[in-house]
Amino acid sequence: MSKISIAIHGGAGTILRKDLTPEKEAAYLAALNDALTAGYAVLEKGGSSLDAVEKAVNSLENTPLFNAGKGSVFTEKGTHEMDASIMEGKTKMAGAVSLITGIKNPVSLARLVMEKSEHVFMAGAGALEFAKLHHCPTEAPEYFYDDFRHKQWLEVKGSDTFQLDHASTKDKKFGTVGAVAIDINGNIAAATSTGGMTNKKFGRVGDSPMIGAGTYANNETCGISCTGSGEFFIRGVVAYDVSCLMEYKGLSLQEACDTVVKDRLLKIGGDGGLIGVDKLGNLAFSFNTEGMYRGKKTSKETYVGIYV
Amino acid sequence: MSKISIAIHGGAGTILRKDLTPEKEAAYLAALNDALTAGYAVLEKGGSSLDAVEKAVNSLENTPLFNAGKGSVFTEKGTHEMDASIMEGKTKMAGAVSLITGIKNPVSLARLVMEKSEHVFMAGAGALEFAKLHHCPTEAPEYFYDDFRHKQWLEVKGSDTFQLDHASTKDKKFGTVGAVAIDINGNIAAATSTGGMTNKKFGRVGDSPMIGAGTYANNETCGISCTGSGEFFIRGVVAYDVSCLMEYKGLSLQEACDTVVKDRLLKIGGDGGLIGVDKLGNLAFSFNTEGMYRGKKTSKETYVGIYV
Repeated sequence: MSKISIAIHGGAGTILRKDLTPEKEAAYLAALNDALTAGYAVLEKGGSSLDAVEKAVNSLENTPLFNAGKGSVFTEKGTHEMDASIMEGKTKMAGAVSLITGIKNPVSLARLVMEKSEHVFMAGAGALEFAKLHHCPTEAPEYFYDDFRHKQWLEVKGSDTFQLDHASTKDKKFGTVGAVAIDINGNIAAATSTGGMTNKKFGRVGDSPMIGAGTYANNETCGISCTGSGEFFIRGVVAYDVSCLMEYKGLSLQEACDTVVKDRLLKIGGDGGLIGVDKLGNLAFSFNTEGMYRGKKTSKETYVGIYV
Repeated sequence: MSKISIAIHGGAGTILRKDLTPEKEAAYLAALNDALTAGYAVLEKGGSSLDAVEKAVNSLENTPLFNAGKGSVFTEKGTHEMDASIMEGKTKMAGAVSLITGIKNPVSLARLVMEKSEHVFMAGAGALEFAKLHHCPTEAPEYFYDDFRHKQWLEVKGSDTFQLDHASTKDKKFGTVGAVAIDINGNIAAATSTGGMTNKKFGRVGDSPMIGAGTYANNETCGISCTGSGEFFIRGVVAYDVSCLMEYKGLSLQEACDTVVKDRLLKIGGDGGLIGVDKLGNLAFSFNTEGMYRGKKTSKETYVGIYV
């Protein structure tokens, strides 16, 4: 029997205590706690890490507080284009979707791609055809509407400005959500979901749906979910880099995470963070920004945090 | 001054001598030679490896013999959806496009994404908007029409069958194209381009546009371009895995390529191959299939081959 544990994130970036009211801060911490509780409950009942990370990410997708699912930011065209991926570490099966609209829980569609198709990655209208075929729950555009997000979009609409989910002081609450877990059978899973960037155009795809960049899981090494400046995470193949540092160089999970986030990623100019779990159930956070919405839960400890 | 060299591929799979007429074989070898010559000419004049791999891939995209650009296979809807990516190893900048139609040279659009946007990866209609803005050359659907490809599609049209580009005896000539090179300044580049799978649906994205899976370049380690069963290459993060084995375990280019293709990839059921270049200008081929269209050129040697 393996030690069970789970970690989650709700995005990294310029998140300063002075910018969050006590009420807002409490709302974020409560939402992180809810997601942790939902995921951990699965593990406690002997469920799979795959179910646990899906449930935790669903919980984060269902609140407007984070940039994923319901809380997704607006694209240049005033729509919501979401990306997600999921991977499990025993068979290294994976699923991913990109540029999808109207799907309530993108990470659950990514799981359908993994389990109900011979493919790993589907995008755009084709992915939505697949979703329809498998009766994946949808929501009307109003579901994804949020006043604050809409105002932020109106400020940059018509300009070439897009808001990265990590570094804008205006959009500091925007980001990505993710979870990593290990279950009683020693199986590791990881999942990531995002609404991308405010005023996004050109069908931009970030790292969140990219296996190896935003998400990776391998029972022999680790499960990783990333958040940050997606382009740099793609170029750094960040999630898999952590796994390789453990497998090929023998680094511990925390050492590998810190090497990637605080050294290799910074060298190419990338900022953000990640969460990880290893085969012993150890959990790690690592970020090079001023904050990361995050939480972790084991049989001994429950923690949620925002700032450095 | 570095030693210059270039390698190319036109797909791997069940390619048997008995299945190719002498005329067909000669046509393939000539097309491979043309692409090698186009790429090597750039290097010989002191040009960049980025230009060399783009020119070599353009040459392969412009012949109907390979499944990329003009020779792209038909999707379920009778269209052509192409993917491509390019990366250069000095700054680790990268560009990628997926699910694009009507673009004459997808790899050149990937380069535009790299050089003219702040993004790495664009897909679908959005990527085509970007292409239009930058006057990327297009072609009418007739340009991409090929009798043989059309017949193959008609055989499976309306069914759930899709033809992987690597393993079907019917579609054995289909695949992916790619190039890797190092220039006189020691800069490494890699590029990959594909038309995907015959009868492809659901907006399937393979490994070719995925940095780290189908394409990777890093001046400190290697440049890699892959071809094969894309889903397995994504799950194995194959191109970056070669780089990590060199950087973290000290393997040579050929050892790293063989470890990934003949051991790690086979363990998860993946077949295909890859080409590589290292910082000393060494070139490597590795494939676990019965053949791979391939070629390499240095100041000392020119080689083109098809079978094991």
